[in-house]
Amino acid sequence: MIYLDNAATTRPDQDAVRGALSLLNEEFYNPSALYKEGFSAHKRLEEARKSILSHVADVQKYSLVFTSCGSEADNQAIFSFARRGNFVTTEGEHAAVYQAAQELSRRGVEVRFARLDRFGRADEADLLRLVDENTSLVSAIHVNNETGAINDIASLAKKVKAKNPRTVFHSDGVQAFGKLPFRMTDGIDLYSVSAHKIGGVRGAGALIYAKNRKLSPVIFGGGQEGGYRSGTENTFAAVQFSLAAEKKFKNIEPDMQKARRCNALFRETLHKNIFSVLSAEDASPYILCISAKGLRGEVLLHMINDRGVIVGTGSACSSRNRFSRVILACGADERTADGILRISFSAETTEGECAEAARIINECADTLAEKTK
Amino acid sequence: MIYLDNAATTRPDQDAVRGALSLLNEEFYNPSALYKEGFSAHKRLEEARKSILSHVADVQKYSLVFTSCGSEADNQAIFSFARRGNFVTTEGEHAAVYQAAQELSRRGVEVRFARLDRFGRADEADLLRLVDENTSLVSAIHVNNETGAINDIASLAKKVKAKNPRTVFHSDGVQAFGKLPFRMTDGIDLYSVSAHKIGGVRGAGALIYAKNRKLSPVIFGGGQEGGYRSGTENTFAAVQFSLAAEKKFKNIEPDMQKARRCNALFRETLHKNIFSVLSAEDASPYILCISAKGLRGEVLLHMINDRGVIVGTGSACSSRNRFSRVILACGADERTADGILRISFSAETTEGECAEAARIINECADTLAEKTK
Repeated sequence: MIYLDNAATTRPDQDAVRGALSLLNEEFYNPSALYKEGFSAHKRLEEARKSILSHVADVQKYSLVFTSCGSEADNQAIFSFARRGNFVTTEGEHAAVYQAAQELSRRGVEVRFARLDRFGRADEADLLRLVDENTSLVSAIHVNNETGAINDIASLAKKVKAKNPRTVFHSDGVQAFGKLPFRMTDGIDLYSVSAHKIGGVRGAGALIYAKNRKLSPVIFGGGQEGGYRSGTENTFAAVQFSLAAEKKFKNIEPDMQKARRCNALFRETLHKNIFSVLSAEDASPYILCISAKGLRGEVLLHMINDRGVIVGTGSACSSRNRFSRVILACGADERTADGILRISFSAETTEGECAEAARIINECADTLAEKTK
Repeated sequence: MIYLDNAATTRPDQDAVRGALSLLNEEFYNPSALYKEGFSAHKRLEEARKSILSHVADVQKYSLVFTSCGSEADNQAIFSFARRGNFVTTEGEHAAVYQAAQELSRRGVEVRFARLDRFGRADEADLLRLVDENTSLVSAIHVNNETGAINDIASLAKKVKAKNPRTVFHSDGVQAFGKLPFRMTDGIDLYSVSAHKIGGVRGAGALIYAKNRKLSPVIFGGGQEGGYRSGTENTFAAVQFSLAAEKKFKNIEPDMQKARRCNALFRETLHKNIFSVLSAEDASPYILCISAKGLRGEVLLHMINDRGVIVGTGSACSSRNRFSRVILACGADERTADGILRISFSAETTEGECAEAARIINECADTLAEKTK
């Protein structure tokens, strides 16, 4: 099997799994317990927290709350700060932000969506135009999960703050964290990350927050995580996440080079009479969004799958809708949106696999195009 | 180490970990993905769901949504149904229900707490008195996590429905599930369970719900779990939970006998001039709440811990407060509440361990009492 759907989830890093496995056995204790074994588990958790945080933020200025997943982190950011006035976001957000925004609307908060360019980048001027004195929160995704488009969130945050210094700025960093070089800059208050997109296991996400911001819990209870996230701490998932992240950040530049070569290989090899590339040249190299216009992406996906290659169609998180709302917001027509495939890489993807996969994808597309004629 | 804090968390069942480990490696795929490997992961998840549900409910009438933990399940039950009118609960609830109730109060919902008897059981008459035509939800814990007191939730639910058929009935079953024989009866609409109290790993809880009840999400996003819980499904945790639960339900009666013998051993052996037993004779045999009145439970816990025995003080989830709110609600004075230890068993606890632990606890208590004189 050649796995090219790493934006949906990654195979957990087995070294990181082995490194954390003791937390499912001899170190299984409850980190909130008062005895020393509980305190040891607590220390493991705090080390993991500091390690993950330190990769992207000054630990003096920022802190990190562990959540169960990236979606929870996004929800917590939004429901903590978009309680009044208006909430400004983009049409290119992950479902966790988009659906939380829909819920805000139902609760009576005004939600404003900034347009995208044809690659899926937020239109900065449009976003800034939407920000006014009543904007409580702005949320703009760092790397779009369908097209790989990169938003310059440092610049966006700075300009948002220039327009309204009281506005809180959040970014969903799930597809950027551990993949692109990045540090939290002053204007960015909140940043969501997830373990399972970078070799972590499911069960761990995190919301990074500026220490001067007070979060509201999404889950109330025993007061774990400084009261910000109740529920017995998932030490295994958190520690495994920290080990996986450590490896990613250590190799961030060479891994990006690898992803670039894989990405370029597909751009060069895929049949140009069938496939158009939607991802920008300067998008995250880890995500390549293509469309076989006039063919059904889902049918193509299954044909490719039968030949031993796994690719995605848009986002696994929105696999219930035929057309991706984000792809349509890029200005694509429905025939283009219907033919979308998402090819996404990890550091483990080899060029050999990509060459083989590209050949198979071409063959399947040729066959399907022939049938569809 | 003799581990007697199984109500806080249990060592994950290693057979169940091994049985689910492939979901962290060759079966790591995203269950929402369209390719066949994703569908296989989806099937594993659905099998786990059905298996867990079938132990306590008619799968025709009830369904189950996976959450990240028991606290999340409690929160989802409460925030789904206690939106208007009043919410009736008890003074013996876990922090996840109690703090969610506090949040409801802040949102303007009236919250009413039923009294407890001296063992921590909800006062049925008092609870029923609080239910009226405006009661949207009643939540009563099945087994109290501090004293082990068992509420007859089938009877309670029936009587609540007799008084107001529109009232929804929820119970936190975290300390009962897999430990006490139980089936969902008609009046019980919602039931929260958790993996890590019965040999499951953290990262999996569930809310069991009657199919005619429409939940509201706590976490919005990609629409996983039928729209009730977004976020990539934690297949490893869910499947490991189902395997751990299967073992528990297979051995529920012999395991209960074991716990009864352990429980009885402590009741007989602990020095009666120092320790009083707060747990009722008919409480869950898995939890024994005792108090060394006049001594500090926390000091005693550390002395015992230094001798290789691990016990709890009240609930690990409320370890931040000196006095347990639940113990005080049982009518205990502060000196009694200050001396609380919680001894809790699993099927793995042996009588030999209990005899040794009881001896050590007695010795430590004698020493501390001598010092405190």
